[in-house]
Amino acid sequence: MRKVFQAELHQIGEQLIEISQLVANAMDKATIAFETADTELAQDVIAADARIDFLQNDLDERAIDILALQGPVASDLRMIVGALRMSASLERMGDLARHVAQLARLRYPDHVIPTAIRPTFEEMAQLDQQIAKKVNELLETRNLELSNEIYAHNARINELHAGVFKAIASPEWDVSAPITVDVTLASRYFERFADHGVSVARKVTYLVTGEWQPSAPLI
Amino acid sequence: MRKVFQAELHQIGEQLIEISQLVANAMDKATIAFETADTELAQDVIAADARIDFLQNDLDERAIDILALQGPVASDLRMIVGALRMSASLERMGDLARHVAQLARLRYPDHVIPTAIRPTFEEMAQLDQQIAKKVNELLETRNLELSNEIYAHNARINELHAGVFKAIASPEWDVSAPITVDVTLASRYFERFADHGVSVARKVTYLVTGEWQPSAPLI
Repeated sequence: MRKVFQAELHQIGEQLIEISQLVANAMDKATIAFETADTELAQDVIAADARIDFLQNDLDERAIDILALQGPVASDLRMIVGALRMSASLERMGDLARHVAQLARLRYPDHVIPTAIRPTFEEMAQLDQQIAKKVNELLETRNLELSNEIYAHNARINELHAGVFKAIASPEWDVSAPITVDVTLASRYFERFADHGVSVARKVTYLVTGEWQPSAPLI
Repeated sequence: MRKVFQAELHQIGEQLIEISQLVANAMDKATIAFETADTELAQDVIAADARIDFLQNDLDERAIDILALQGPVASDLRMIVGALRMSASLERMGDLARHVAQLARLRYPDHVIPTAIRPTFEEMAQLDQQIAKKVNELLETRNLELSNEIYAHNARINELHAGVFKAIASPEWDVSAPITVDVTLASRYFERFADHGVSVARKVTYLVTGEWQPSAPLI
């Protein structure tokens, strides 16, 4: 019985890793689609999001079955409840990658982001890609050094996000209102993606150390 | 033992109702602050959000304790896992009401929304206020008619949200880029608030009927 239970717990962990891998792929592709106005790649991301949603639902059902059938306690229980939370964050990260891809598709053949502000978005996108990869690695290795790197990337993204609004408010900003909307939404999507990455990192850190960190960046 | 357990379950339900009441109050006040450029009221909403966050954490801890100590199964287990999900959605609704209030405070003494598009935002805000109230009533009464009303309000908000972007893209749109940003973000906050309301409504419906509704509006 105990052996079956451990195998089931392990499977939950594996499925979280799998979802986080799909999220990292989605953000990689969404970024390329976004930066190169590649509508086919955007379509791939949009289609692939259904798989993430399916895996999240499946993981949640398994987790609830374990709760019902095994009545786990202590750290096993925390792990399962944590997995439910993390799967929700990962699913949301998948949605946000999809939103980025949808913007690319909507504006095709144009680029979403005006030239002047493109470097800011490139850095944001790169940081989000790294966050997604580090979340995946963190779930696999539980190396908490990665959590700190995720928090640092998130802090930088918050700066860049604020920088976008400064650029929009500057007298040099001369793009159309609909493009201003796209820039605003894209910046918000990249920023929220990082927030959810932080949320997963905090949860893993909590599961490993048993200590909640109210001083860590808030989600 | 069974009696204690039922009392604990009841308490979780009561706390969800309490949180949803605070969320409804927050959206009521945030809307007034937003529409009348009332910075003090905005500050109230921002300060009150900490209470929602506290109650969510507290509810989650209680729910996990019940899982650990009582090992609930079947519908009791679904109810507790559902409460964890609903508390997360309600907490997020509180954040979004706070974001609306923060926009009002940021632009004070100006109004956030240009006159021409104000009726659209008034309708969106009203619908969100109703959604919050109906979520509160739904948690209290489990009258599923309310879920359908929430879905309908959400559908209307999605139309209004799309209408905002159409207005911004029209040749008559002559407001500054920073105000375009505010309008975009405000519209997104109102739209997301409704999404989370739908999410809670779907969860309650599922707990009452045992049937998940993939055809209901997606969160």
